Parts: sequence; C-alpha cells; structure tokens
Amino acid sequence: MSRTAADRAQLALLLEVAATPTIGNVDRHRDLEGLHFERFLAGAIDARPGLEHAAGDGPLGRAFLRAVDGMAGEDRENTQFGCLLLLVPLVRAATRPPAGRLSPADVRAVVEATTVEDAADFYRAFDRVDVAVEAPPTDAEDLDVRRGSAAIPALRERGLTLGEVLALGADRDDLAREWVEGFPRSFGAAQSLEAAGSSAPILERAAAVHLELLAGRLDTHVVRQHGPAVAEELRASAARLLADGAPPEAVERTADASVADGINPGTTADLLAAGLYIALERGVGP
Amino acid sequence: MSRTAADRAQLALLLEVAATPTIGNVDRHRDLEGLHFERFLAGAIDARPGLEHAAGDGPLGRAFLRAVDGMAGEDRENTQFGCLLLLVPLVRAATRPPAGRLSPADVRAVVEATTVEDAADFYRAFDRVDVAVEAPPTDAEDLDVRRGSAAIPALRERGLTLGEVLALGADRDDLAREWVEGFPRSFGAAQSLEAAGSSAPILERAAAVHLELLAGRLDTHVVRQHGPAVAEELRASAARLLADGAPPEAVERTADASVADGINPGTTADLLAAGLYIALERGVGP
Repeated sequence: MSRTAADRAQLALLLEVAATPTIGNVDRHRDLEGLHFERFLAGAIDARPGLEHAAGDGPLGRAFLRAVDGMAGEDRENTQFGCLLLLVPLVRAATRPPAGRLSPADVRAVVEATTVEDAADFYRAFDRVDVAVEAPPTDAEDLDVRRGSAAIPALRERGLTLGEVLALGADRDDLAREWVEGFPRSFGAAQSLEAAGSSAPILERAAAVHLELLAGRLDTHVVRQHGPAVAEELRASAARLLADGAPPEAVERTADASVADGINPGTTADLLAAGLYIALERGVGP
Repeated sequence: MSRTAADRAQLALLLEVAATPTIGNVDRHRDLEGLHFERFLAGAIDARPGLEHAAGDGPLGRAFLRAVDGMAGEDRENTQFGCLLLLVPLVRAATRPPAGRLSPADVRAVVEATTVEDAADFYRAFDRVDVAVEAPPTDAEDLDVRRGSAAIPALRERGLTLGEVLALGADRDDLAREWVEGFPRSFGAAQSLEAAGSSAPILERAAAVHLELLAGRLDTHVVRQHGPAVAEELRASAARLLADGAPPEAVERTADASVADGINPGTTADLLAAGLYIALERGVGP
C-alpha cells in the first residue's frame, strides 16, 4: 500500500460521513432530507482532481475550485464544501518538503503564501454550489461571497489574498477561524483521535471526537441557519452528554432528534474531516 | 465533474458496501466479526493504483495484482479480492476504443486477450491475502491457486492464460464463471439497476438487486465455506423473500440472522459491485 495525500483526504471524507452517531449530520445510520449518504460517497470520489491538484504545485485556490467543482457535480449539490476548504490547505501543507509530522506551522505557511488569484478562485467556487453564508459586515459588502465571481473586481481592487479574505470572516465562521489561527480545532481533533487509543475502531473514535467538537464551541453553520440560541442549546446538550460519559442510547436519541429538527452542525462535521485527515497523515486509522 | 473509469470502480466498491440490507454481507448497518465497514472504505481507496492500471495499457494481470496489493494493506486483509477480479477486466473493457455502451462482447475480448503472464500475476495475488478457495480437481493440483506464486512454473509449463486458468474453476466458482461466460450476472445486475427506476435511491436499488442475485443461484463462497445445503437454504430463503415482495422487516431479520450465523455470501456482493460499476458506466447512479 502506498497511500497518497489525496487518497488520505478522500478517506477522511469517507470516514467522516461513516462515523456514527454524529449528532445532526448525515452518518452511517442517518440521512437528511434531500441529502443522502451516497452523495457523500460520490463527493469524496469526485473531489479527487482538486485534491490531487492540492498535492501538486499549482495555485491553491484552483485546487479548491476544482475540488468543489468535482464534488458538486451537475446538480450543484453542496455536501463537502466546508470539508474541502479545510482539506485543501492541509493536503498542500502535508506535501511540502521537508516531510515530517504535519504541524500547525506547516499549514500557517500555506495560508500565508496564498495570493489574490487564490482568492478569486475561492469566489468562483461560490458560483458552483449553494452555500449557506450570512451577509458580510457593511464595510465589506462588495466582497460578499454570495456574489461569487461578480465580487472578483472588488477583490482585485482591494488586493486581498485568500488568507486575508478568510480573515474577514473569522469572527463568525469557524472554518475561516481555522485558516487564521493555524487550524487549532482540526489539530485538536487529530490529537483526540490519536489519544482515544488505537484499540477502538476508528469510526467509534471519530464519533467520540465529533461530540467533543460539538460541545466545545457553537457550530457556526447552526448559528447561520437557526441563530445563536439554537446553536447554544445544541452545544450545551452535547456538553451534558459528554459530562455524563456519552451514554450511547442518549447520544443516539439526540442524533435522531437533531436530524428530525433539521439542525445540522455542518461546521463540526467539517472539523472532524480535517482532524481525520491529520490523524491519517500521522499513521492513525484503517 | 469528469469521473474516470477508476473513479467509477471505486464508487462501485463504496456503493456495494453501503447498500443495505445485503443479507449476510457487511453493509451500511452491519459489520461482520473482525471485518468492519471502514476496511471496505479504505480498500476502495487503496485499490486505486491497480484500477488506474486497468484503465491504462499495461498487463491486465498486473492491474489485478496491484489492486489486490493496495486493497490488502499490510495486514493482508481480504475485503474486496473478488470484487476486483470482476472490476479489473470491466474497467479494461470500458476504456478500450471504440467508446460506447459497455457490453459483454467488450469484456469477452479482454478475457480472450489475457496472457500467461497475466495468469502468473493472478497467482502472485494469492501470496498477498488469504482467500477462501477449495482444492482444485486432481488433474490440476499443480495449479492450485492456494500455492500462490509457487504454482507459476507449472502454469508456464502448461502455457495457460488467465482466461484459461479461470475457465478451470468456472464450474464451482461463479466469479470464474463470469470470466468465461461474458459476465452474464454482472450485466444482468446492471440491467436490474437501470430498470428499477431512477426515482429510488441507488442504494435501495442496489439492495433489491442483491436479493435478486442471491435468489438466483447458490453463492459459491457460501458453498465453499458451509457446503451446498447451507448455500441452498440461503438461496431459497432469498427466493421466498423475493416472492413475498421483499417485505423490509423480513429482509432485515434475515440479514441479521445470516450475520449472526456467519453465513457471508461474498460472491453475491462481488457480483453486485460489478453490476454497480457497469450501471455507473451507463450513467446510472449518484
């Protein structure tokens, strides 16, 4: 076996969606309405050209755009947009010399090296899928990602790199925050996956880490879709389950209830995928 | 999206293991003892170099050997050996000009073009994993696949191609039978997947086709492991379920019972994977 970085990123996407229970997300035992397990399998396969590009030398923004393009397919489905936003720079960091244990410094260097053209491709990616995002601050309306490639002239005028664009959203989007702060929760998730002991199956460890992530901070995708009160309710219920030792039946019940209520902590799933990728790079997993 | 033949083969492996219920096999809701869902996800990823080789111009036997090598990993696990034995020639057939609807004639031509060296690589693949096979006829003991690469001198002496080697086993192994007879059950499964109507999710259609396949003939993997009486019992129970309109709860109960009894119709799963691949080549699926 000679697994490549792109292979590991695809496997991280598959393990993320297969882990169960992952409260509110599509998992091995749960579909969401209109968003089924098999779309995630197909998304992991179809993101490959972009992930291979991320492992190569071409522009990082183009790697993300290609990964999203593949994942979204003709029906513009958004299954793994957020996962790919984390995986693409991590794959790039893992494939830069010198080879060694993938670290936050490695991915910080990748973020710092991004260009205005990378940012333009990031905006183009929003033309490809429907992504739930909120309005930007009033001083950045011309950079609203919902405008997609129409925002590129404003972007060029301001001369912002992809790293700088994401910094604009770091206070209200935890994926952007990862980019700005050296992927702290992604690396934390990887550490938990390593610490949870290699005797438990990886999918069980992944589900445990999902609960930890969910309990740790408000899920910014839930905040956008349902407001901070609902997000805090979800976080608090995860924290209670964790404090109680994560009794399996109670976690399953909460997972069922979240799916029934349409409360989908997508950011948490994205962070888990990133953590799984880092752990796979470090030799954890199947 | 620009899915390649290797992408589709990987997706077929993923959809096969995700389809549920698939009586007696690992599926979205069931693991076997010592054989977990995540190993199949990893096997689908790690088979890629061999599947890409199959889509290229190199020797077909080498493609199979590489696919098995990747899939098996360091722990020599055999999750998808049989699936790969069907997928490799199908991928080769799908990528030969002229491009068109993949047909039995295309894959017959691939089988007829195999060489003695392809057969040697097939034997080498048995060094990599533990595969359940029974003793060969007494006039072919020197060609027992269980001897692995040790059988290669006898193979060369007899001058048998891979197609001819598989023909020796076609009366007691339904995967070998596929090779000899133009993949009739694989193409039949694909036709059922297409006919089942594109409105049902692909994983539901795949589970329905699994039941059809299981009801159609004795599973030769079950015959090898438990004898023909147990295999006939399994076939008959699948046929009864099918005649009753496949009531979901009854199928789930039978699936649970087969897993509990350790009766694993591996050949049927392999045929389903091949059928899914052909269907994906023909535009069915996610």
